[in-house]
Amino acid sequence: MPVAVNAYSVEYAGAPLTPITLERRDPGRTELLVDVAYVGVCHSDVHFARDDWGISRFPMVPGHEITGVVAAVGPDVTRYVPGDRVGIGNLLDSCRTCANCRAGRQQYCLGGAVSTYNSIDRTGTPTAGGYSEKILVEQDYALRVPDALDLAAAAPLLCAGVTMYSALRHWNAGPGTRVAIAGLGGLGHLGVRFAAAMGAEVSVLSRTAAKAADSARFGAAHHYTTAEAAGLGGRFDLIVSTLSTAADTAPFLALLATDGTLVMAGAPAAPLTAPVGLLIGGRRSVAGTSIGGIGETQEMLDFCVAHGIAAEIEVIGADALDTAFGRLDAADVRYRLVLDATTLRT
Amino acid sequence: MPVAVNAYSVEYAGAPLTPITLERRDPGRTELLVDVAYVGVCHSDVHFARDDWGISRFPMVPGHEITGVVAAVGPDVTRYVPGDRVGIGNLLDSCRTCANCRAGRQQYCLGGAVSTYNSIDRTGTPTAGGYSEKILVEQDYALRVPDALDLAAAAPLLCAGVTMYSALRHWNAGPGTRVAIAGLGGLGHLGVRFAAAMGAEVSVLSRTAAKAADSARFGAAHHYTTAEAAGLGGRFDLIVSTLSTAADTAPFLALLATDGTLVMAGAPAAPLTAPVGLLIGGRRSVAGTSIGGIGETQEMLDFCVAHGIAAEIEVIGADALDTAFGRLDAADVRYRLVLDATTLRT
Repeated sequence: MPVAVNAYSVEYAGAPLTPITLERRDPGRTELLVDVAYVGVCHSDVHFARDDWGISRFPMVPGHEITGVVAAVGPDVTRYVPGDRVGIGNLLDSCRTCANCRAGRQQYCLGGAVSTYNSIDRTGTPTAGGYSEKILVEQDYALRVPDALDLAAAAPLLCAGVTMYSALRHWNAGPGTRVAIAGLGGLGHLGVRFAAAMGAEVSVLSRTAAKAADSARFGAAHHYTTAEAAGLGGRFDLIVSTLSTAADTAPFLALLATDGTLVMAGAPAAPLTAPVGLLIGGRRSVAGTSIGGIGETQEMLDFCVAHGIAAEIEVIGADALDTAFGRLDAADVRYRLVLDATTLRT
Repeated sequence: MPVAVNAYSVEYAGAPLTPITLERRDPGRTELLVDVAYVGVCHSDVHFARDDWGISRFPMVPGHEITGVVAAVGPDVTRYVPGDRVGIGNLLDSCRTCANCRAGRQQYCLGGAVSTYNSIDRTGTPTAGGYSEKILVEQDYALRVPDALDLAAAAPLLCAGVTMYSALRHWNAGPGTRVAIAGLGGLGHLGVRFAAAMGAEVSVLSRTAAKAADSARFGAAHHYTTAEAAGLGGRFDLIVSTLSTAADTAPFLALLATDGTLVMAGAPAAPLTAPVGLLIGGRRSVAGTSIGGIGETQEMLDFCVAHGIAAEIEVIGADALDTAFGRLDAADVRYRLVLDATTLRT
């Protein structure tokens, strides 16, 4: 029996979040129906809601940093039972047959992955995300949230966390590497914690010194303001930029050592610019990265348990959603807003 | 005893090449004085002569693709004797102590390498390049040109050749990889030969089909015009661009497979632009590359012997130098002009 659930929706580009009722169908044969407990408010929710990237579908229920509890399972589900604690990131399903899916890189699915929102599911229905009481997910795309992780503080791990974890792993952050995280926000603070736990020497690149104490608390060895960083030419092996405003890569490229890489985890709407001399002189690279594969996301959650890592969060109720996007714009969040989905109940 | 030699010089940005007389000092303790036999006319000579990159020093004697014969040696030279066939690329010396020099990556010397021209040598004298009868080089920065290589056809290997060889090696071109070379000119034709010899499946990306037969002759499996290439989304693991005009990387990024890399061997004067979505969607990279290390350059020459590779050249005399730069601009060269330095003698 389909079930009506409360949710928050953006009706058109730039519209405010407004309460709606949404129908969730019965789980398909291998699907889970999940009671959403918490959902992180990701900056990409803001970008999608405003159609900053020109790829938005409306109406839109945002939210892809979800933790919750399995409420019901389809008849062929083997991996979960009701009551299990699960996480859902930005993948509900993928083609499972392309080279990337077979290699566990479902985030780069070539056959068309089903994103948690702003996508079309296998039944032809637009997906609706985690700003809702319940959500469906394929069992193979759900993550197991270990008991040691708090469901609220774990929610941002499903997108912000794995985005940073995957980039740091792929570009070999570890002992002997000098890693900088540009921007200390939702992604950035998790990036610092991961890179430090991996054994890298971590620096934070931030506009001002306002968050210097937090940088240290998260495990950074150094916190550099923009002015201070300008004197650090050639210092870093890897810079992961979480900024969605910095389209000019030159200031970061100049900070890279030979063979260093600037990885864009944030997505400026404007095309990146890069003076080719900074790439050629030092064999530097600019790359992009997108979340992580399903196995990698599970590995990240287990890594969090082993290293005591979680997001630093502020839990909000549904009544605070209308100001949440504005607070993200103003960088007035330390360090992730997480919606308590029980407040969606009427 | 210093010796006066004939040379060709560019007196100011954009000036024509004009004959001058240049003084070469006696070789220093570990230097070789080399009788230049041939010198390739590299497109970067044109860019430097016009100050396209804003880093030129005038007056300027261009030329950094040099082959010749050792004429005299300094008192502490141990590795060469007069009569040896040698090559000189774009490095006359480097600091030898930085991490990059110690690792054999002298082309990325952090202490200040001495370039073959447009640079200052250890005595404080501006360097003057290979458009001259003789030149000095540190013995450790000279290459041994195997007897099996023709001195004329080997000259372009010292810059164009090693630039492509180094990039293809660094980014792991080989069996099972799909490599595209963008632009079939001096660098491009050698890139095709190298990549094919390394076992990669090689494609040429060219504006038109005019050079398709040459692509095949050099070892490419495919030749794609710009219009044809537009349908090849996601095909290549590695694209090496030899173009100095293509600052918009989007058309090339779209052709890369997941984890693919666009390597800029050509250097557009304008900043590169790259839509971040193309980087993030597929974890793609844009990188730059500069010539090669000294050991790597020797390895490349030996690879050329093993695989029968040399540049396809047109030998010109000094009287043709005044039209050479214009022919490079017009892409009217198949595939490298090489100056016969004996024509500099009066």
